[in-house]
Amino acid sequence: MIVVMKVGSPEAEVVRINQELEEWGLTPEKIVGKHKVVIGLVGDTVDLDPLQLREISPWIEEVLRVEKPFKRTSREFRHGEASEVVVSTPNGPAYFGEHHPLVIVAGPCSVENEEMIVETALRVKAAGAKFLRGGAYKPRTSPYAFQGHGESALGLLAAAREASGLGIITEVMDTADVEKIAEVADVLQVGARNMQNFSLLKKVGAQEKPVLLKRGMSATIDEWLMAAEYILAAGNQNVILCERGIRSFDRQYARNTLDLSVLPVLRSLTHLPIMIDPSHGTGRAEYVPAMTLAAIAAGTDSLMIEVHPNPAKALSDGPQSLTPESFDRLVKEMEVIGRAVGRWAAPVVAVA
Amino acid sequence: MIVVMKVGSPEAEVVRINQELEEWGLTPEKIVGKHKVVIGLVGDTVDLDPLQLREISPWIEEVLRVEKPFKRTSREFRHGEASEVVVSTPNGPAYFGEHHPLVIVAGPCSVENEEMIVETALRVKAAGAKFLRGGAYKPRTSPYAFQGHGESALGLLAAAREASGLGIITEVMDTADVEKIAEVADVLQVGARNMQNFSLLKKVGAQEKPVLLKRGMSATIDEWLMAAEYILAAGNQNVILCERGIRSFDRQYARNTLDLSVLPVLRSLTHLPIMIDPSHGTGRAEYVPAMTLAAIAAGTDSLMIEVHPNPAKALSDGPQSLTPESFDRLVKEMEVIGRAVGRWAAPVVAVA
Amino acid sequence: MIVVMKVGSPEAEVVRINQELEEWGLTPEKIVGKHKVVIGLVGDTVDLDPLQLREISPWIEEVLRVEKPFKRTSREFRHGEASEVVVSTPNGPAYFGEHHPLVIVAGPCSVENEEMIVETALRVKAAGAKFLRGGAYKPRTSPYAFQGHGESALGLLAAAREASGLGIITEVMDTADVEKIAEVADVLQVGARNMQNFSLLKKVGAQEKPVLLKRGMSATIDEWLMAAEYILAAGNQNVILCERGIRSFDRQYARNTLDLSVLPVLRSLTHLPIMIDPSHGTGRAEYVPAMTLAAIAAGTDSLMIEVHPNPAKALSDGPQSLTPESFDRLVKEMEVIGRAVGRWAAPVVAVA
Amino acid sequence: MIVVMKVGSPEAEVVRINQELEEWGLTPEKIVGKHKVVIGLVGDTVDLDPLQLREISPWIEEVLRVEKPFKRTSREFRHGEASEVVVSTPNGPAYFGEHHPLVIVAGPCSVENEEMIVETALRVKAAGAKFLRGGAYKPRTSPYAFQGHGESALGLLAAAREASGLGIITEVMDTADVEKIAEVADVLQVGARNMQNFSLLKKVGAQEKPVLLKRGMSATIDEWLMAAEYILAAGNQNVILCERGIRSFDRQYARNTLDLSVLPVLRSLTHLPIMIDPSHGTGRAEYVPAMTLAAIAAGTDSLMIEVHPNPAKALSDGPQSLTPESFDRLVKEMEVIGRAVGRWAAPVVAVA
Repeated sequence: MIVVMKVGSPEAEVVRINQELEEWGLTPEKIVGKHKVVIGLVGDTVDLDPLQLREISPWIEEVLRVEKPFKRTSREFRHGEASEVVVSTPNGPAYFGEHHPLVIVAGPCSVENEEMIVETALRVKAAGAKFLRGGAYKPRTSPYAFQGHGESALGLLAAAREASGLGIITEVMDTADVEKIAEVADVLQVGARNMQNFSLLKKVGAQEKPVLLKRGMSATIDEWLMAAEYILAAGNQNVILCERGIRSFDRQYARNTLDLSVLPVLRSLTHLPIMIDPSHGTGRAEYVPAMTLAAIAAGTDSLMIEVHPNPAKALSDGPQSLTPESFDRLVKEMEVIGRAVGRWAAPVVAVA
Repeated sequence: MIVVMKVGSPEAEVVRINQELEEWGLTPEKIVGKHKVVIGLVGDTVDLDPLQLREISPWIEEVLRVEKPFKRTSREFRHGEASEVVVSTPNGPAYFGEHHPLVIVAGPCSVENEEMIVETALRVKAAGAKFLRGGAYKPRTSPYAFQGHGESALGLLAAAREASGLGIITEVMDTADVEKIAEVADVLQVGARNMQNFSLLKKVGAQEKPVLLKRGMSATIDEWLMAAEYILAAGNQNVILCERGIRSFDRQYARNTLDLSVLPVLRSLTHLPIMIDPSHGTGRAEYVPAMTLAAIAAGTDSLMIEVHPNPAKALSDGPQSLTPESFDRLVKEMEVIGRAVGRWAAPVVAVA
Repeated sequence: MIVVMKVGSPEAEVVRINQELEEWGLTPEKIVGKHKVVIGLVGDTVDLDPLQLREISPWIEEVLRVEKPFKRTSREFRHGEASEVVVSTPNGPAYFGEHHPLVIVAGPCSVENEEMIVETALRVKAAGAKFLRGGAYKPRTSPYAFQGHGESALGLLAAAREASGLGIITEVMDTADVEKIAEVADVLQVGARNMQNFSLLKKVGAQEKPVLLKRGMSATIDEWLMAAEYILAAGNQNVILCERGIRSFDRQYARNTLDLSVLPVLRSLTHLPIMIDPSHGTGRAEYVPAMTLAAIAAGTDSLMIEVHPNPAKALSDGPQSLTPESFDRLVKEMEVIGRAVGRWAAPVVAVA
Repeated sequence: MIVVMKVGSPEAEVVRINQELEEWGLTPEKIVGKHKVVIGLVGDTVDLDPLQLREISPWIEEVLRVEKPFKRTSREFRHGEASEVVVSTPNGPAYFGEHHPLVIVAGPCSVENEEMIVETALRVKAAGAKFLRGGAYKPRTSPYAFQGHGESALGLLAAAREASGLGIITEVMDTADVEKIAEVADVLQVGARNMQNFSLLKKVGAQEKPVLLKRGMSATIDEWLMAAEYILAAGNQNVILCERGIRSFDRQYARNTLDLSVLPVLRSLTHLPIMIDPSHGTGRAEYVPAMTLAAIAAGTDSLMIEVHPNPAKALSDGPQSLTPESFDRLVKEMEVIGRAVGRWAAPVVAVA
């Protein structure tokens, strides 16, 4: 932490501040510049709030943080090595991480009925997916919109899991539902709107299933990593970070702005695996293929793509869903780029 | 809802779409323009998603919403009249609404100990506040930062309530805590990070205490009103909307951008009372007075201002807190503007 | 400037960096922290780019700026005193600055014809304005929209100036037009879209008329002050800063987000006078009064308000223009707040 | 254009509005909905401003645009076909467009001296570039920063052109400089800060050299295409659109947010070729490779990459520049993805 004093700060005030900082258990070191005095703080400053420190004296102009605010999520915490998240599924373990092939997650926005979810599961598995996504509890802007079938949908997800052997990823919105959902889900998803629902983060951190943490719509990279830090600090080390588009000034065509630069940025900051969701990230099915391929080229570990047997009749998020046919075609294109960057696994089972 | 067809759409497709829309229970009316055909939808379209409708045909270029997505929060729902939220406090009922004098809410970010919270309550009451704010459960970006004293802080708030007669406003972050907090609080606060925590909105909507709903950091006006709609739809009509600063591209000086234009905008859209929080809205105590006075001139019904006996030692949000002395001075300035706009109540008790 | 080294940086590299920095004419001072080494740079660092410095070594994690990037616009440059901009108009000198009464600028978006501009000038003067605004050259998003009457409109502005005695403020968009416009205008306006048109800034900085510098739609406070710095550095000290709304994620109701927090922020950073433009700042006439009053309460030195005799027929920006009648009413409300904050001048001439 | 009337609008007012719209030369068609009346406007509405129309009556709630505001840039204007921009260079014609191989543009931010620019030209040509970028006139936030060598740098660019045979792309910032720069440049660049400098757009539209139009930092897609429309409307059909990162709320790691979704979005809206600039788009050399590969996978027609022989000593934008060596390596990776998507040209000349 660096304390920058205002021009003309009295020497006595600098002395007083140094004394106060020493009382806080820090070792201040003063540098006298041409115009300004700055004080470097040596010691455990990670928990200090720069703005708080500023309040010690009206002569302080600014306090600059030198340490990153996150620890367990930092790449340094693992000495520069990537971590991997291993998820057991009926079809065997699936590996998320930068030294593993791309993992494809696909499925509808919400679970509508058994036939639909089982059919979708079989189709996306045939195309190459390892996980089925599908919402039982849905966050909807309007209280009058379909809120998901809730508990009964969990049974349908279990049926789809059994029928297809795919792992299940589904969203948890309420601390009260965590156990119930964890019985069915292989990965618990925390949605963008709950990224800073700290009660929920602590709760999913205290259970054993891996967690998919979506980035909040206006969350900075640091805030996102701090949200992951809540989960890791609570004891759960299996977190996958999912970029799903941020909010910008232009929402006329793409509904969100998919920030693919998180791929190189997160790689240098954290050891955690990364997923990209181009469906929510753009909000329109026609933009999904280009952004999917871009994500692979930029090095994503995983992709989450919405697929619905009949997007026009979907109870939620239809416009961003691919049909099973267009998903089949997209996976073939993904394979081309995936192979080019060395992140493609076994031969894909062809779809007739 | 208006369906805009692409240039060159085949007549047969327009006929087919009309038929499909009729099956949905709508009455489509076609307008043939110079370049394009548009279809107006007559009927109950409020629950339809424009993007969903777009999926009916690849020949649809765009679907435009004509109805507002909110009902109970809309000004029209009350035939253009403002509503008022009446809160009973030990000192008697307090009225929030555009036909009432300004209500001042003040207090620290978090409840630290009994002496501190009682002293602050007495000071802000003496200055003119009707409510004490203070967090028992605190949403913090870092898991390593002070998280609030939780349940034990609720007892301290109760003590401050008894000592001062002020109403209590405190934040609820978890559905599991609602009852417990509602025993002490006169108003339940839903924070910015939980504005779209729909489980929490339903829960506070199902109990009787009034709710203060803060705007999410990147929530549009429509999303904010839809969040309020969740609470009203669940049965609780007593909602106060609180603007606390939105996230913009420049956070170097003011940490958030306080959007005072919500005052005229919300007035025309909704009947609900409005509060402005210039402390979180700017993030620095030195900017609070100017924005407080601006909010009064622009017609706010209420203000929430952070006051802490010793901001430099505050366990959270110190830099944006006023000292009791600067709060006293600010209330005097508020009175001048409040009287000028006819929103000032009884004579203020002078602070020695 | 503070150089932060990565954890584990080799001592030899720190030595090498220090030597290189010394060659740049700087005096580096090293602080050895618990985890990291930081190097404070003493000397003239204002022209250095922190990102550039970072390139000296791959072991540098970050370079933090301690000095502000602006000089002549800074409040410190005038030892904490405000500056004033004095503009001579046919009716006598007008003073912009925090120790002067509020200055009102009013008029249409663009100059349409002589009758309209002269009539508007007389109306707004009667209501209390000191300056007439009106565009001869108009920046329009579409090449097919009305672009202003250009040179011929300058003659009409001159006529309105003579008829009313008001000072004239009009926009300059092209370096080639500066002299021509400066013959008629009392203040040259640089619009939001040209805030970083550095050729234009240098040109208006090299002539004598005062300059009104509008904030760019996504300009940070620092970028805005640096744009002003271009004008001051070119020799023209008479710059007024005008906030006109920034771009945010929500443009459905207010077209821009009027950032009134610039009032306390700029006051602490710069000596230059400040103007607020609530017409462009909100984009709708119905939101203008509330934001105008808010700006006065928050301490603005000046206001720019669009007034048009018949907004529905205006060739540009009609929806945000007040009618002369509603402007009259607004000025009366402004007077109430203006007097309350001690920033109102002589008695207003009543409008019959 | 669709006019939406408020609930309860008097029939007489709807009649009056219809009459007024007919006077404007439009054919209004009324649809009576369950709650609201809407009026569809048939006729030439492209030049009408929806907000202006709203002013016709206080009973109008909203006016929705159905037509796109751009014409010549629209894909429909060319019946769905892509256009190509052909640029003659000493080495022969270069083709920009979706049916041509990827075009690589590389070079330093600014032209520093002859040796440096010629060396860089030869290096990037050897690696596979077809164009040299390099600024003679530089837009810099600070008036005290290096502003480019101006006219003398044009001579150096001419020398580099002759030595390498590469085409030259350089920025024009002032209408007064257009002719002078067009004598040397093969493509004129309009920078992000001047995207809505309409005087400049008209000027480059009135000359013959192709224009590279960078997206403004907070420009919507529509505004960007309207800026291109200025150039096309002025007579110059050879415009390339360049995405270079937009401004978002998080600038801590990537300085801008590179919006790759423009690739599928622009493809569907416009026939013009597209370039991506990952150097300005991220602001840091270490993020450039990932975003470059992503852009190719997503279908870009062209890339602009900053390369500097010694980034740490660069007079501007060093931190985002690649060294020639890292550029060589990157081109090899680009080839892999470029071949995978079928957008790679002739064999690359190997660099020893």
